[in-house]
Amino acid sequence: MLQIDQQRIGKSALMLLLIEREEEEWNRQFNELNWQYCTGKVGSMDTQKIVSSIETAAKRSGIVDEKLYRDMHALYHAIMEAITGVTRGQTQLGEILRTVGLRFSVVRGTPYENPDEGEWVAVALYGTIGAPIKGLEHETIGLGINHM
Amino acid sequence: MLQIDQQRIGKSALMLLLIEREEEEWNRQFNELNWQYCTGKVGSMDTQKIVSSIETAAKRSGIVDEKLYRDMHALYHAIMEAITGVTRGQTQLGEILRTVGLRFSVVRGTPYENPDEGEWVAVALYGTIGAPIKGLEHETIGLGINHM
Amino acid sequence: MLQIDQQRIGKSALMLLLIEREEEEWNRQFNELNWQYCTGKVGSMDTQKIVSSIETAAKRSGIVDEKLYRDMHALYHAIMEAITGVTRGQTQLGEILRTVGLRFSVVRGTPYENPDEGEWVAVALYGTIGAPIKGLEHETIGLGINHM
Amino acid sequence: MLQIDQQRIGKSALMLLLIEREEEEWNRQFNELNWQYCTGKVGSMDTQKIVSSIETAAKRSGIVDEKLYRDMHALYHAIMEAITGVTRGQTQLGEILRTVGLRFSVVRGTPYENPDEGEWVAVALYGTIGAPIKGLEHETIGLGINHM
Amino acid sequence: MLQIDQQRIGKSALMLLLIEREEEEWNRQFNELNWQYCTGKVGSMDTQKIVSSIETAAKRSGIVDEKLYRDMHALYHAIMEAITGVTRGQTQLGEILRTVGLRFSVVRGTPYENPDEGEWVAVALYGTIGAPIKGLEHETIGLGINHM
Amino acid sequence: MLQIDQQRIGKSALMLLLIEREEEEWNRQFNELNWQYCTGKVGSMDTQKIVSSIETAAKRSGIVDEKLYRDMHALYHAIMEAITGVTRGQTQLGEILRTVGLRFSVVRGTPYENPDEGEWVAVALYGTIGAPIKGLEHETIGLGINHM
Repeated sequence: MLQIDQQRIGKSALMLLLIEREEEEWNRQFNELNWQYCTGKVGSMDTQKIVSSIETAAKRSGIVDEKLYRDMHALYHAIMEAITGVTRGQTQLGEILRTVGLRFSVVRGTPYENPDEGEWVAVALYGTIGAPIKGLEHETIGLGINHM
Repeated sequence: MLQIDQQRIGKSALMLLLIEREEEEWNRQFNELNWQYCTGKVGSMDTQKIVSSIETAAKRSGIVDEKLYRDMHALYHAIMEAITGVTRGQTQLGEILRTVGLRFSVVRGTPYENPDEGEWVAVALYGTIGAPIKGLEHETIGLGINHM
Repeated sequence: MLQIDQQRIGKSALMLLLIEREEEEWNRQFNELNWQYCTGKVGSMDTQKIVSSIETAAKRSGIVDEKLYRDMHALYHAIMEAITGVTRGQTQLGEILRTVGLRFSVVRGTPYENPDEGEWVAVALYGTIGAPIKGLEHETIGLGINHM
Repeated sequence: MLQIDQQRIGKSALMLLLIEREEEEWNRQFNELNWQYCTGKVGSMDTQKIVSSIETAAKRSGIVDEKLYRDMHALYHAIMEAITGVTRGQTQLGEILRTVGLRFSVVRGTPYENPDEGEWVAVALYGTIGAPIKGLEHETIGLGINHM
Repeated sequence: MLQIDQQRIGKSALMLLLIEREEEEWNRQFNELNWQYCTGKVGSMDTQKIVSSIETAAKRSGIVDEKLYRDMHALYHAIMEAITGVTRGQTQLGEILRTVGLRFSVVRGTPYENPDEGEWVAVALYGTIGAPIKGLEHETIGLGINHM
Repeated sequence: MLQIDQQRIGKSALMLLLIEREEEEWNRQFNELNWQYCTGKVGSMDTQKIVSSIETAAKRSGIVDEKLYRDMHALYHAIMEAITGVTRGQTQLGEILRTVGLRFSVVRGTPYENPDEGEWVAVALYGTIGAPIKGLEHETIGLGINHM
């Protein structure tokens, strides 16, 4: 059984997307660490929609407080960094005639031993990118990490 | 036991870095698919060194033919796309005072059902990026995929 | 009383946005130098609208001649450089779910002692950038300078 | 009479745009090499439309097989590289208030002596870029080359 | 007398560079807010040296704790954003034959009314950028803001 | 005989690189237009060296006055735009393990009918880009245009 490594918040966010496992099992592991996470799906030619889907999921699951700019600022930059990995060079999608189908995860936790390091957030994206025609696509991944 | 999904060459490259498994087990699975792969490590402040480490590993393991520009061209662009995910915005490392410690994998295979789609290459990178001081770093990932 | 430094066309454009002063006082100082300037405001999720607002203000105040491509070309590149500072990485706004509220200034003058250096233009932007929700934003600045 | 240099697929794509010559003459030269080509025109503030115009022309003339992702993937990246030359810094057009009027060419051929190097594609763009006002524009060029 | 606006941490960092004032006066104002700041100078063709000069100054003046990655991570990204404004397009200097002469400031404070917003950092840069020949240069500015 | 089109300063710079013709013939045509031009060669893994080679050639041939910042500023930005086309995404060469072999041309002239449009400069680059191994390379082009 794969165990979440407490010092690997990024890997935990990636694993949520890459391996299949019962939700209860994920919940148990994240609860043990006292970490929060959520996952979701978004398909779009619109970078804006990817950002808003992830933000909405993170707000609804209580990972971030939508009234607190510091939370939203930390999450936003983690999302943008993950999108950079997915798009590899420009953050545009439909504007340059490509589309993505992605699963995403957000993990909030404490990946450093020193308690003063506090909380961090990891945003992972995994799916396909390609032409807006089914099958004309390949896989893509992205990961953004930020201090909360 | 996690099984490599034949339509997921990118995921197979990522799994080589993210889960621990006996090399024999990897070999068996890739041999069944008749795919080639290699893995390696590189730590550097020098993007050039990352490119050359991956190229050298791929040449030595016979994944690419170093005399054939089409092989090297396909691999180069896959490497650069993976580096974009790792560096998230600029492809510079030491020039902007940061360093990486990465494991890398290269997989060459046939991820599409249609045999005319031919061979593709996936380059994955996973490790840490940060200040040139131990511990001042977080995780990072990158994936590049190209047709051979 | 702050005095405009004749060799600092960029600083003069920034000061127009950063310090409060009677318009007459600005007029007096710029007239003494025989320089031209204008200021304005624009709030948008649309980079295009920022460009057009600044161009329109500069045309109306006679800083540039809208029939002369060399004027418009010089101004355009100065605007784009200022926007680069504001957006720090991509020139996109709404496409990546962010918005700006900016004041802008354009100054046309002769910042070099050698009269052969001729006229230059400075475009400054100062305001806030953030999520399209009031208060979820921080300050931002940009400056572009070009020869006319 | 200018002769196409068999080792210069990029130059052949550029020449299709830069020199005037009877279509029959071009056909004769490309037929001798057993290469394929097409040309076309596109004017737009929309990068997406440039991509789709070139893709459509290449499909219709049989240069690429629209069912084959490897063909479309190779062409797409060559188009994006050519657009990078045209736009010099961002791949945006209307979003930053500029427009292009372009002629384009696509050439598929075998520019390397070694037959194992196989087929490559060159995409060239030449025309004007500027403000969306007639005359406020200058020339621009771009070239992308990829293995098929 | 210009007064620091408590909601404008970015402006306070810019003012430290743009207006001349007795250091005691700055100290008095920042002390009243219970904010920390430092200033310094750096001239280089080397982006790395700019980053390290600012980091060193911020460490020495106690604005950041060099043992705490969250501090250094927040500062690093604010520095890189400020450098983006200065370089307007690429973060390279000597690599593309240009050099900068900059003054910099770092301010750590609490620019939001809601105490939960906590501490933020602003990094400002102002000076000249140009060819490595005296006088062949123009002004440039940059500002980066991050939550601590 | 190909004739330089007076309204196509960019095309004239490109033709200097793409077609073979007696130097006298070029001289005659540019003299008739009262335009200036120079050409040269540079091979390097160092973007800096490309910039300096073009600048030196333009200074020596009297196209620009090295004491005049407005000349050097206009030329510099035209060079950088041309390099963007050559490098298609980042302006780095050796840093990402690639090298170029280029011919370059610089043309200074009056491409607009309206005499108020004054002088403009075009910088063209054409050659090969690729791995630092002979033959592992393909063609590349770039063009930058600026008002003087």
